[in-house]
Amino acid sequence: MQKKGELVSFRPDIKVVDCTIRDGGLVNNFFFSEDFVRDLYLTNIKSGVDYMEFGYKASKEQFDVTKFDKWKFCDDDDVRAIVGDNDTGLKLSVMADVGRTDFRKDIGDKSNSPFDMVRVATYINTIPAAIKMVEYCKNKGYETTINIMAVSKANDSDLDDALEIIGRSCVDVIYLVDSYGSLYPEQARRLAAKYLDCAEKYNKIIGMHAHNNQQLAFANTIECLTMGVSYLDSTVSSLGRGAGNCPTELLLGFLKNPKYDISAVLDFIEKHINALREEGVVWGYDVPYLLTGRLNLHPRDAIQFIAEKRTDYKAFYRYLFDRECE
Amino acid sequence: MQKKGELVSFRPDIKVVDCTIRDGGLVNNFFFSEDFVRDLYLTNIKSGVDYMEFGYKASKEQFDVTKFDKWKFCDDDDVRAIVGDNDTGLKLSVMADVGRTDFRKDIGDKSNSPFDMVRVATYINTIPAAIKMVEYCKNKGYETTINIMAVSKANDSDLDDALEIIGRSCVDVIYLVDSYGSLYPEQARRLAAKYLDCAEKYNKIIGMHAHNNQQLAFANTIECLTMGVSYLDSTVSSLGRGAGNCPTELLLGFLKNPKYDISAVLDFIEKHINALREEGVVWGYDVPYLLTGRLNLHPRDAIQFIAEKRTDYKAFYRYLFDRECE
Repeated sequence: MQKKGELVSFRPDIKVVDCTIRDGGLVNNFFFSEDFVRDLYLTNIKSGVDYMEFGYKASKEQFDVTKFDKWKFCDDDDVRAIVGDNDTGLKLSVMADVGRTDFRKDIGDKSNSPFDMVRVATYINTIPAAIKMVEYCKNKGYETTINIMAVSKANDSDLDDALEIIGRSCVDVIYLVDSYGSLYPEQARRLAAKYLDCAEKYNKIIGMHAHNNQQLAFANTIECLTMGVSYLDSTVSSLGRGAGNCPTELLLGFLKNPKYDISAVLDFIEKHINALREEGVVWGYDVPYLLTGRLNLHPRDAIQFIAEKRTDYKAFYRYLFDRECE
Repeated sequence: MQKKGELVSFRPDIKVVDCTIRDGGLVNNFFFSEDFVRDLYLTNIKSGVDYMEFGYKASKEQFDVTKFDKWKFCDDDDVRAIVGDNDTGLKLSVMADVGRTDFRKDIGDKSNSPFDMVRVATYINTIPAAIKMVEYCKNKGYETTINIMAVSKANDSDLDDALEIIGRSCVDVIYLVDSYGSLYPEQARRLAAKYLDCAEKYNKIIGMHAHNNQQLAFANTIECLTMGVSYLDSTVSSLGRGAGNCPTELLLGFLKNPKYDISAVLDFIEKHINALREEGVVWGYDVPYLLTGRLNLHPRDAIQFIAEKRTDYKAFYRYLFDRECE
C-alpha cells in the first residue's frame, strides 16, 4: 500500500475534528457544564484543532428534552452563547443521525447558523436517506460528511456498492467509522485503501472515526492517516461512548504541523477531565470493551456490565460468545 | 514490506512470553503474594502462554535483599516452591541485566534449574558483555535471548553493527525493546524489518517487547508479529513499569491459534488485578507517560510525577521539553 507523507513532514490536507462533546455526550446525556464547553472551545482554538463538533441535531419529537442536555439538540442560540460569532480559525460541526433528526425543521441556512459542517451518521442500509440529508444540507450551504457506522459489520460487496453511491453524491467527506472498536490496524488500512480509491475516483475526502475497545483507536487513526486519510476524529482523554475514542493529546503529539500544540489540551485535562471522573462519569478502555470489540459487537452490553460494577469478566465473555455463536 | 501469515490463520513459530512478574515487579519491588504468583503460573498454563518470566537474577551484592522481594533474585528454590518440577508445556524464563547480575555465581546448570531460558537485557553499548553472558548461559544449557533496550535511542548505524555482532553470536532470540514506548507503528515495522533481515542471515528468531506510553504497545506488537516477529512479550492488564506493556488479554484475543484462550486470564484479572490496584499499586497508560514517550525519554520522571499525585501536566511537559531541547 502506498504511503502519503513522512513522519517528519506534515500534510496540509489533515484536519483534526474534536468530537469530545458529541461522542462524550453519549456517556453523560450531554450534561456538561457551560465552563466545560466554553473551555473546550477555547482549548480547541489554542491547540490548532480544525473542527469542533458540539453535539447532535436530534429530533425533539423523538427525544425527551428533559432527559438530555442541550448539546443533544444543538439549537443555534445555545451554540452562539458559547462561540458568539466564532471569529476564529476553528470551524464548527454538528451531527445528525439518519432517522433521528427533523433536519428540515432544525437545520436552517448556513448564513444564519454557527455551524460550518453537518455530519450525517448512517448505517449502511440507510444510505439513500443519508444522501437526501446531505443534499439538503449542501443546498443550505454547509460542508457535509457521511459517516458509515459499524463498518466492521458490513460485507465487502455492500460496502463497495455504498461507496459508489456516496461517491456519486454531493458529499464532501466520507468517514470510515469503527463503531465497535473491533478493527485491527491491518483491517483499518485495508478499509482505508478502499475508501481512498473511492475518494480518488470521485474527488472526495476520507475521514476516520475510531473507538478504543482494543487500545487501537490511536494506532488505527495514524495508520489511516499514513495511507492518505485526512479528517481525523479525536476526543480529549478519549471521552466518548464506551471505551472512547482516539485521544486528542496523543493525536496532536503525533502530528508534525506546528499549528498543533498539546499544551492547551493538557491544561484542559488538568482542569476538567479529572473532575469529570470524580463526578462519576465512566468511560475509556476496560476489559469488557475489549471483549465486545474482539467479538465485533455493539458496546451496549459492556456499558451495562460496567454500570452494574460487575467484574466477572469470564462469565461475561462466555455469555457474549454463546449468544453470538449459538 | 512483506507480510507473514493471515488474520485468519496462525503461525506455529509464535511464542507468547508472560512478563507480568518481571516487568510488574519494577512497579512494586516484586512484592507479590505467593497466591498471585502461583495463580499466574496456573493461568499461563491454562491459557496456552509459552513462557513465563519469573523475574531477575539480580546481584545480591548490588541490591539490598530486604528492599526487594524474592523475584528480584529468583533463587531456584523459590521458583521450585511455585512450580515443583514444572511438568507442563509452559517454559520458564528469567532475566539478567548486564552489569547487575553475578551470573557465574547465580546461574548454574540448566539440568538443576527450573528455568528453560535466560534473557539478557543490555543497552547497545554493553553488547560485548551481553554476549559473554549469553555464551555462558548457552554452555549451561539454556535457551538465550539478547534484549537490546531503548532501541528508540540508538542510531541506525550503531544498531546495524550491534545486530551483526549479535547475529554472529550463539544467541537464539534477539529482542526489539521499545523501553520508552516511543515508537509509532511505522517505526516499529521498520525496525522489525531490520531485525528480521539479521534473523534471516544468521538463523535467529526475533522478539518484541513493547511499552504502552502512547497506547501503542498492542498495536506495535501485532504489527511486528505480522512482519514475522515470533516472540511476543505481554503482561496481564499491562502490569509493568510506568505505562506498562502489551496486555496479555488483548494479545491472546488477537492470536488465532486455538491453544490460546483468554478465559483464565479474565479470571486472573478479576481475582488479582483489581485487588492490586486497590492496594495502591499504580501502573498503566496515563498522560505523563504519553509525554515522556512522545519525547523519547525514560519514564522515570513520569513515574515520579504520578507518585507525587501531581496533575500539572502542562508544566511537566514544559519542564521535559525545555530540559531536552536546551
